[in-house]
Amino acid sequence: MSDEQMVREANERFYRAMNAADVGQMDEVWAGDATAVCVHPGREAIFGYERIRESFAVIFSAENSMSIVASNEHIRVQQDIAWVACTETISIMMEDGLDAAAAQATNIFQRTEGAWRMVVHHASPIPFTTQDDWPDMIN
Amino acid sequence: MSDEQMVREANERFYRAMNAADVGQMDEVWAGDATAVCVHPGREAIFGYERIRESFAVIFSAENSMSIVASNEHIRVQQDIAWVACTETISIMMEDGLDAAAAQATNIFQRTEGAWRMVVHHASPIPFTTQDDWPDMIN
Repeated sequence: MSDEQMVREANERFYRAMNAADVGQMDEVWAGDATAVCVHPGREAIFGYERIRESFAVIFSAENSMSIVASNEHIRVQQDIAWVACTETISIMMEDGLDAAAAQATNIFQRTEGAWRMVVHHASPIPFTTQDDWPDMIN
Repeated sequence: MSDEQMVREANERFYRAMNAADVGQMDEVWAGDATAVCVHPGREAIFGYERIRESFAVIFSAENSMSIVASNEHIRVQQDIAWVACTETISIMMEDGLDAAAAQATNIFQRTEGAWRMVVHHASPIPFTTQDDWPDMIN
């Protein structure tokens, strides 16, 4: 398997952990040390995996169920570091219906003992277009 | 000079180019190839330095003058790749006064022929607190 394919799979594991809302899976995704950095959309950076883990536990404990799909992955590998730019499409099921949003993500991975682990996750809000917003010509 | 110090200087060069509103200086900061990625606050990713350069030219041509200060830099160097997490405080001078905003940035640099060049800039909006918002006790 190529380095790029292994990084793609590591990136997919992160989004599977998000969709499973499973902190234990998140532990397997991240490097897990004090140098890890996480930026949730619209928030300040969180430094260190211990505090990052807490933030995911809070997100996963919310009553609204969430699903997230990554697309348009651009992957670069340089020696033992790789970074992925991708678009996140987020669907949130709430009491009064479905809401959706989009984010742009930069994910950095480090290869340690043959495994690619996440060291940075930075997601930021981007405009989300629904079908209603599309020009009539193509709708 | 240590690797970390060289990366810190490369990061500072980026913000000097921003404050100088100088695309020529930006050319010296970036790796300049098709793999570069730039995410301006609240926007989708721009891929390739040619299009990134155009986006800075548009930003720099705006009539409102802008100044940007980076702080709270967290720097990691791994072989020929380095990444910086930092906070950006942005002041914008407009016709009717001064406005301010804050962003969280992830900047990735790659060492090529001894020089650290930017390959990713990802900035995203974060809440900005003015003195008026501070609790009375410490204000």
